[in-house]
Amino acid sequence: MGAKLRERLVVIGGDAAGMSAASQARRMQPDLKITVFERGFYTSYGACGLPYYVEGLIKEIEDLVARTPEVFRQKYDIDARVFHEVENIDLNRRAIRVRNIKENKTFWEEFDKLLIATGASPIRPKLPGIDAQGIFSLSILPDGLAIRQAVQEKSTHRAVIVGGGYVGLEMAEALLARGLEVSLVELLPQVMSTLDEDMAELIAHTLREMGVTLYLGEGVERFEASGNRVSGVKTSKRLLPADLVILGIGIRPNIALAKEAGIPLGETGAIAVDNHMRTHVPGVWAAGDCVECTHLVSGRKVFIALGTVANKQGRVAGINLGGGDAQFPGVVGTAIAKVGETEVARTGLSAREAETLRIDHVTAFVKARTRAKYYPGGGSAAVKVVAEKNTSRFLGGQIIGPPGAGKRIDIFATALHAGMKVPEMLYLDLAYAPPVSPVWDPVLIVLRQVAGKL
Amino acid sequence: MGAKLRERLVVIGGDAAGMSAASQARRMQPDLKITVFERGFYTSYGACGLPYYVEGLIKEIEDLVARTPEVFRQKYDIDARVFHEVENIDLNRRAIRVRNIKENKTFWEEFDKLLIATGASPIRPKLPGIDAQGIFSLSILPDGLAIRQAVQEKSTHRAVIVGGGYVGLEMAEALLARGLEVSLVELLPQVMSTLDEDMAELIAHTLREMGVTLYLGEGVERFEASGNRVSGVKTSKRLLPADLVILGIGIRPNIALAKEAGIPLGETGAIAVDNHMRTHVPGVWAAGDCVECTHLVSGRKVFIALGTVANKQGRVAGINLGGGDAQFPGVVGTAIAKVGETEVARTGLSAREAETLRIDHVTAFVKARTRAKYYPGGGSAAVKVVAEKNTSRFLGGQIIGPPGAGKRIDIFATALHAGMKVPEMLYLDLAYAPPVSPVWDPVLIVLRQVAGKL
Repeated sequence: MGAKLRERLVVIGGDAAGMSAASQARRMQPDLKITVFERGFYTSYGACGLPYYVEGLIKEIEDLVARTPEVFRQKYDIDARVFHEVENIDLNRRAIRVRNIKENKTFWEEFDKLLIATGASPIRPKLPGIDAQGIFSLSILPDGLAIRQAVQEKSTHRAVIVGGGYVGLEMAEALLARGLEVSLVELLPQVMSTLDEDMAELIAHTLREMGVTLYLGEGVERFEASGNRVSGVKTSKRLLPADLVILGIGIRPNIALAKEAGIPLGETGAIAVDNHMRTHVPGVWAAGDCVECTHLVSGRKVFIALGTVANKQGRVAGINLGGGDAQFPGVVGTAIAKVGETEVARTGLSAREAETLRIDHVTAFVKARTRAKYYPGGGSAAVKVVAEKNTSRFLGGQIIGPPGAGKRIDIFATALHAGMKVPEMLYLDLAYAPPVSPVWDPVLIVLRQVAGKL
Repeated sequence: MGAKLRERLVVIGGDAAGMSAASQARRMQPDLKITVFERGFYTSYGACGLPYYVEGLIKEIEDLVARTPEVFRQKYDIDARVFHEVENIDLNRRAIRVRNIKENKTFWEEFDKLLIATGASPIRPKLPGIDAQGIFSLSILPDGLAIRQAVQEKSTHRAVIVGGGYVGLEMAEALLARGLEVSLVELLPQVMSTLDEDMAELIAHTLREMGVTLYLGEGVERFEASGNRVSGVKTSKRLLPADLVILGIGIRPNIALAKEAGIPLGETGAIAVDNHMRTHVPGVWAAGDCVECTHLVSGRKVFIALGTVANKQGRVAGINLGGGDAQFPGVVGTAIAKVGETEVARTGLSAREAETLRIDHVTAFVKARTRAKYYPGGGSAAVKVVAEKNTSRFLGGQIIGPPGAGKRIDIFATALHAGMKVPEMLYLDLAYAPPVSPVWDPVLIVLRQVAGKL
C-alpha cells in the first residue's frame, strides 16, 4: 500500500559546494528528498566578495548572497536549514546528529546519501593576545559585517594585515580605500607565496606605491591589547601600533566531522575523494574547501580552497548524487587577484614549485605591452613562464599587469589542461586588435623566449 | 683571393610580413645581404591603427610606424628602400626588375633568396562614379591621412560606409566620434559575415544604439557625384546622400607579380606556401596577406589577411631564410574588434561555416555576466559555441560583450589549437575573482550548455 520512500540526500554545509550540489541533484532527480544543514545564517554566499563589501563597493551584505534558504525551498524544493550545526556522522546508523542552534536542541537525521561540504576555516594562530577585540579573519559574511563596522569607527586609524596572500592583498586595497594606514606583515621574504620571487617583488612594489607599508620576513609574536582591544602587533623585529588586525595566513579544511566518523583523509589532510567526488565510504560524497584534489600538472594531491573550484566540485557531486555521471578532472592551480589597478594571476607550476618537484625546467620573463603601442591606455604586463626542459611541456605562467592583463592566464590554464608543449603554443592564433592587444600578445612573446631555452 | 660573396636575400614589400622576415633573418644570419623594396613611403606600419588615427585617438600618422627605413638600415643592416616598386620577377635570371618611383628609373636586382610579401589591396568595385573624390579605402597610411583630412573639412557631414566587416565597424565608430552622420550599407542581410546571424544581430543592435543607420541586404549600384566630388550612394533601394564614402568590402591578395613569374597560386587565389612559408619555386618564399594558409579546424586552405598572421608568417619565413627551422601551423580564424564599448570576437568555425562544410554540429548560446553579479561594472556577454556532434570536438566560438569579454576568445582559440573536445573543457580551471569573472565564467556556462546537446 505505502508509497515508495523517497531517497534522502543530506548535505552538510550550505555554501558554494553544498548548494551547487543540492541544486544540481534536484535538477537531475525531482523525487530526491534534499536537506541541507548550514551552521551559519546564510546559504550560497560569495565570501570572495567580502573585501569589496568592506571597501564599500558593495553596499549590502545581502548582495553577496546568491540564493537564500527561501529560494532553495520554494524554487528547488530543497530544505535548507540555517543555524543548524552537524555534530556527528554515524556511518552505521546512516544518520547525522544535528544541533538546532537557536533552539539548542539536537536530533538525528537519517540519510541514504551524504555530501560533506563543510568548507574550510581561517587559521587563527595561538599567539598571546589573539583573543583581543579587533582581530579579524575573513571567511564568512559576519566577518565582513564586523570588519566594516570596525573600519567605520572613529578610533580606527591603523590597520595591520598579517599574511601577504590573496586575502591580505585584497584587504590592503579595501582598507586603504577606507582611509586607513595599512601595514602588512608576512613571515616569508615575499608576498604571494604562489608566485616566484621576481614576480612577487613587482606586486610588492605595487603595494608600496599604493601606500601599504610592507614588513617581509617578519613573524608575528604576539598581539598587544589596551583593555580588551587590540593596540599593536609585535613582530620579530618591531611593535606595530594597530587599531585593527586582519588575519590572512591561510585556511584549514574543516575535517573534524569526517575524521571522527572514520572517513579517510588524503595526504594533504583534507578529505580524500575520487574524480566523482566520492569519499572512500560508500554513499558518502565530499566537495569544496574540505577536500583535496589532483593538480593536473604535478599529478600531486593539493588542497586548493577557491570558490571556483568549490562550485565545480559541487556541480560534479550533484550530478553524480542525482544519478548522472560527471567527473571533476582536477585543477591546474589558477588564481587571480586585483590589487588597485593591477591584476596578478598565476597558473600551473611556478619555478619554485618545479624546483621542489625536481622537474628540470627553464623560465622566461618579459615585460610587454597589453595593447598596440600607439593605442591610448593599456600598459606593460610582466609575464613569466616555466617549461620542462626535456619534454618541452608547458608547466605554468604568472602575469602581472594593467586591467585586462590578468585574464590572459586563462590561455595558459587551457594549454595546461590540454597538456600542450611550448612549440605548439608559439603561433597560437590569439585575438588581435589595437585596443585589446599588440600584434604579438605578451603571452606569445614570453613563449618564444622560453622556447629559445629549450 | 676574393672574399666569399654574401648571400643575397631580397624582400618585396616592407610591411608586417616583409620587415618581420627581414629582421628575423638578420638575427639569424649577420652575414646575409638583405634588401627590401617597398613601393610606398612607410615601412612596418600598423594599418590596423588607421581607424583610431581617423578618430583622433592617435595624433600623428608616424605613431603607427613601428620602425622606419633608417632604423632598419642602422640597427639591422637592412637596406630598406621605399618608393621602389617591383615590376617583374625573373626566376631564370634570379633577379627582379625594380622601379625607383621618385627617379622613374628601373634596374635589375639579383637575389639568392626571394621573399614575396606584397600584401593585399582593398577591393574597389567597378561601379559608376567610383572615381569621384571622397571615396576611400583604408589600407595604407596615406588612406588614413586623406580620410582624416576629409573628415575635418567643414563640408563633410554625412558618411556612408560600404561593407559591414571589421573595417566598416571600426570606421563607423571613428566617424561617429568625429561628429559625422554615419550610414552603413551591406549587401548581405547581416553585418560581420564571419559571425552567425544571431550574433551579428546583437552587433547590429549595438551599432544602431551608437547612432549608425544600417541598410542591410542592399547592394551599391553607383556613386553620385557633384562636380567630381561624391554626393551620394545609390543602393538597390535608395539614394543616400554622402560627403564621404568608406569602402570596406574586402581585400584581394596582391599576386600579379607572382602569377606572372609562374609561382603557383593556391585554391583561394593567393600564393600557395608550405608551413615553412616556401612557395613551390625553390628559393622563393612568400608570407603575409598575399598567401593562403591552413585553417586548423576545417583543414581547408583559407585567405585570411590579418596583421597578427602576417607578423607570425614573416617571423617563420625569416627564421627559415636565415637558416633556421620554423613552422607556421596555420590559423583557427580568430578575430576581434572593438565597436564603441562593445567587443566582438570569433574563432574557429561558425555554425554557418560548419553547415557549409557539412559537419554535423550543435550550438549553444548564453548571455552571462563577465564579473561577479555583486561587483560593480562589468556587464553581460553573449557567447555562442559550436561543437561537432559525433566526436564532441570543439569547433568554434563567438563572443560579444563589454570590455574584457572579447579576449576570452583566446581560451577557445587555444582549445582549437590543442584539438580539445567539449567534455575536456567543462571544468577548465579559469581565473576567478569578483572584479574579473563570476565563479562560472561565461565560457564555461556556454560549454556546459553545448555539452548537454552532444
